[in-house]
Amino acid sequence: MNNTVSKNPLLANTSPECFTYLQTHSERFLNELIEWCKIPSISSIAAYQAEMRRAAEFGAGLLRAAGLENVAVLPTAGHPLAYGEWLKAGPGAPTVLFYGHYDVQPALQAELWETPPFEPSVRGDCLYGRGASDMKGQTMAEIKAIEAVLQTQGRLPINVKVLLDGEEEIGSRSLRAFITENQARLACDYAVNPDAGMCSADQPSITYALRGGVRVNLTVYGPQQDLHSGVFGGTLHNPAQALAELIAGMHNAQGRVTLPGFYERVRPLEAEERHMLAQLPVNDAFFLQSSGAPALWGEPEFTPYERTTARPTLEVLSFQAGLPGEGVLNIVPAKASAALSMRLVPDQDPQEAYQSLLRYLEAQAPPTIRWEAQYIGGGRGALVRRDQPGMQAMYRALHATWGVAPRFSRQGGGIAVVGQLQQIMGVDSVMTGFGLPDDNIHGPNEHLHLPTWRKGIQALVHFLFEAAPRGTAL
Amino acid sequence: MNNTVSKNPLLANTSPECFTYLQTHSERFLNELIEWCKIPSISSIAAYQAEMRRAAEFGAGLLRAAGLENVAVLPTAGHPLAYGEWLKAGPGAPTVLFYGHYDVQPALQAELWETPPFEPSVRGDCLYGRGASDMKGQTMAEIKAIEAVLQTQGRLPINVKVLLDGEEEIGSRSLRAFITENQARLACDYAVNPDAGMCSADQPSITYALRGGVRVNLTVYGPQQDLHSGVFGGTLHNPAQALAELIAGMHNAQGRVTLPGFYERVRPLEAEERHMLAQLPVNDAFFLQSSGAPALWGEPEFTPYERTTARPTLEVLSFQAGLPGEGVLNIVPAKASAALSMRLVPDQDPQEAYQSLLRYLEAQAPPTIRWEAQYIGGGRGALVRRDQPGMQAMYRALHATWGVAPRFSRQGGGIAVVGQLQQIMGVDSVMTGFGLPDDNIHGPNEHLHLPTWRKGIQALVHFLFEAAPRGTAL
Repeated sequence: MNNTVSKNPLLANTSPECFTYLQTHSERFLNELIEWCKIPSISSIAAYQAEMRRAAEFGAGLLRAAGLENVAVLPTAGHPLAYGEWLKAGPGAPTVLFYGHYDVQPALQAELWETPPFEPSVRGDCLYGRGASDMKGQTMAEIKAIEAVLQTQGRLPINVKVLLDGEEEIGSRSLRAFITENQARLACDYAVNPDAGMCSADQPSITYALRGGVRVNLTVYGPQQDLHSGVFGGTLHNPAQALAELIAGMHNAQGRVTLPGFYERVRPLEAEERHMLAQLPVNDAFFLQSSGAPALWGEPEFTPYERTTARPTLEVLSFQAGLPGEGVLNIVPAKASAALSMRLVPDQDPQEAYQSLLRYLEAQAPPTIRWEAQYIGGGRGALVRRDQPGMQAMYRALHATWGVAPRFSRQGGGIAVVGQLQQIMGVDSVMTGFGLPDDNIHGPNEHLHLPTWRKGIQALVHFLFEAAPRGTAL
Repeated sequence: MNNTVSKNPLLANTSPECFTYLQTHSERFLNELIEWCKIPSISSIAAYQAEMRRAAEFGAGLLRAAGLENVAVLPTAGHPLAYGEWLKAGPGAPTVLFYGHYDVQPALQAELWETPPFEPSVRGDCLYGRGASDMKGQTMAEIKAIEAVLQTQGRLPINVKVLLDGEEEIGSRSLRAFITENQARLACDYAVNPDAGMCSADQPSITYALRGGVRVNLTVYGPQQDLHSGVFGGTLHNPAQALAELIAGMHNAQGRVTLPGFYERVRPLEAEERHMLAQLPVNDAFFLQSSGAPALWGEPEFTPYERTTARPTLEVLSFQAGLPGEGVLNIVPAKASAALSMRLVPDQDPQEAYQSLLRYLEAQAPPTIRWEAQYIGGGRGALVRRDQPGMQAMYRALHATWGVAPRFSRQGGGIAVVGQLQQIMGVDSVMTGFGLPDDNIHGPNEHLHLPTWRKGIQALVHFLFEAAPRGTAL
């Protein structure tokens, strides 16, 4: 992989009226984002189905207002998609598929939010609210960049398709079938996906690798029902203890995953890439400070950044046994459950990773308990060549906006659609974004840094021009 | 310890009118028990304070109706006690302190109850409801036995004091101070405590040993807040994993507790006692069947019954990390907590057991996490000589009622008051009861087997006569 990107961006094409438009409509853009964020579009909880529909319709309304055509809310087996397009750029112009998602994570720890998660509130430079950063804000940036060009120029330099997903936070599980069945409609040269964030407010970045993942629920059963710990304690294998033992055995003392064959297909990091990644401002101090953990942990032969982006991991997302709280019962719990997440790197396969967990459990689980593993979902990681036109156009757009050379980086998280587009249609995604590492996405007090968001919209305006063949004028 | 008990009980003293009274008033007794069980007297949850008071007043009303004197609801630092006495048996008659408790466990898993826990319901031979067996039913049996004798004879063969505790399910934590400060009022030859149950409906038993215990909450802290598992997974020691590792290390592969010094003071089982215990109908099949677990577990050199009664244990009562359920977040949880219960045998000390846990944690907890242990409460176990008069009187009473020789048994659970009376006043407790192993006390669908309960009342009537010096007539 060759990092050949112009270091001297030429942005003569971008029309200055676009930026005037962004300034004039800045307050309206924010208000529209606030309205969108008020809708609790939590894809993972069934009770929010009507809100999901409302949020999709809201997104479709934004696409229409931007000037896109053939706007529709499209059904899937799960939550609906919103779609719009503008395909009149003429011969020679590329077609770019802009991806966004309107669904959000739950906000279960309501007491930790300084202002309610679904009553977006501006404090200082930031908009606080669930979805403000991940990713209604990022999606809005795409739509508003398109709007600014379409409304000031009456046309776009490239063909554009916009797809708003309602299931990103649950692994885009209905999207795979939709892409498979709608390959003509979604046909494009490449996709743009601003769900990948940036290193810091001063340092734009383009993501070229994502981890995939597998979610598994593991339950250990012991007695048929909760039993008195005095009467039965000491003669039964406590399911909470047994599950703790199984989980403890999933890593060795060096932090390596012990599941048989787990690392078999892991693509090794090359020296050149390790060198490039070492330049990123994400060292030990960064991870220590941003996590607040007392010390770092993990495979000692890799840097923390490599461990979180280029190495597969196994994490316990939750562990439940017995009944906590004020009135704790003196019981041996009948069962214990854990939600496990394996993060995968190219060329690992989710089903193979799940099988390696099953092989571990078959070998290690004792006969004193029963266990049950449930495959919740999974997706492969993705790796995108850094030398292709879409990557270079985004590089120039970011460079021009921030005045500093963007970094190429890997991401530890997964974005299911990136793998789906790559596998089904052979379409690569240009991954960037204007979310910051401390936006606390998925956590309480999620927020969007508004100055960075506004720069992001400018960068995407630049991108619409830079993505056109050189020399194209409107 | 010598098991010298008369095998040919003489019960000539018991007045037959008492049993007629029991029959005549049988339905009223059940109705009164149902009324008592309707009061959700959950001592462990602060919101039930008013219900605790109501249940104590109800208990005092029962004592008054039985004919006891100086009946009062007495304040403690926590929930109140109910007390009553009858001290006119004359010279030479022993004084017996009858203990009961009116508090109950919570009924948190409401969905698992076939009928609501606080709407007691008779189905078949059983009364279903929280507290029906543990121990409003047992306490009622004591009071009704006293009532039957007092109301038919106008007097009792022995002096009687009745103390109803409101904090048994939370370790009788205010009772220690009350006993210390009221030793004259509570002065007695021995206590009777029917909170210890019986082996089976056909096999009465007397308990001569209880386990003590310690409750500890252990929390492991990692990052300052929940973090995205994609962004941070692999570079921080996941607190749920770290807690699982610590818990896994607390037992070795043979099921022995590894905490340093944990077994130091454990009184060894003597061959004679092991032989006696081996006669009890609580073998492997019993534990397998009553638990429904796929296999038994624990120190192989001891029988399951010995492991649950004469060996100390460490159990995980609950384990909580992350947020379970439908909308699982992709997070590394900021902390993980477990409630641990150590069951102790003579001569272990709760504080020493806690210290051995702390020594383990100090040695084993890695620098990648912070941990915090909290001592919730604890009490010592108890061992009572089997050859004393109270034990023998109860033996004869049970023998006469069931027609089979009672068994002497150990109990795996703890009853805090037994240790408190032994330590503060040198008073032993005669422990028996009419609760059955499958009553599911502390769990859903707790129930009381009514035929056994009615036999229990008869047995306690016999006991009131048998406890008097031989030859005493009313």
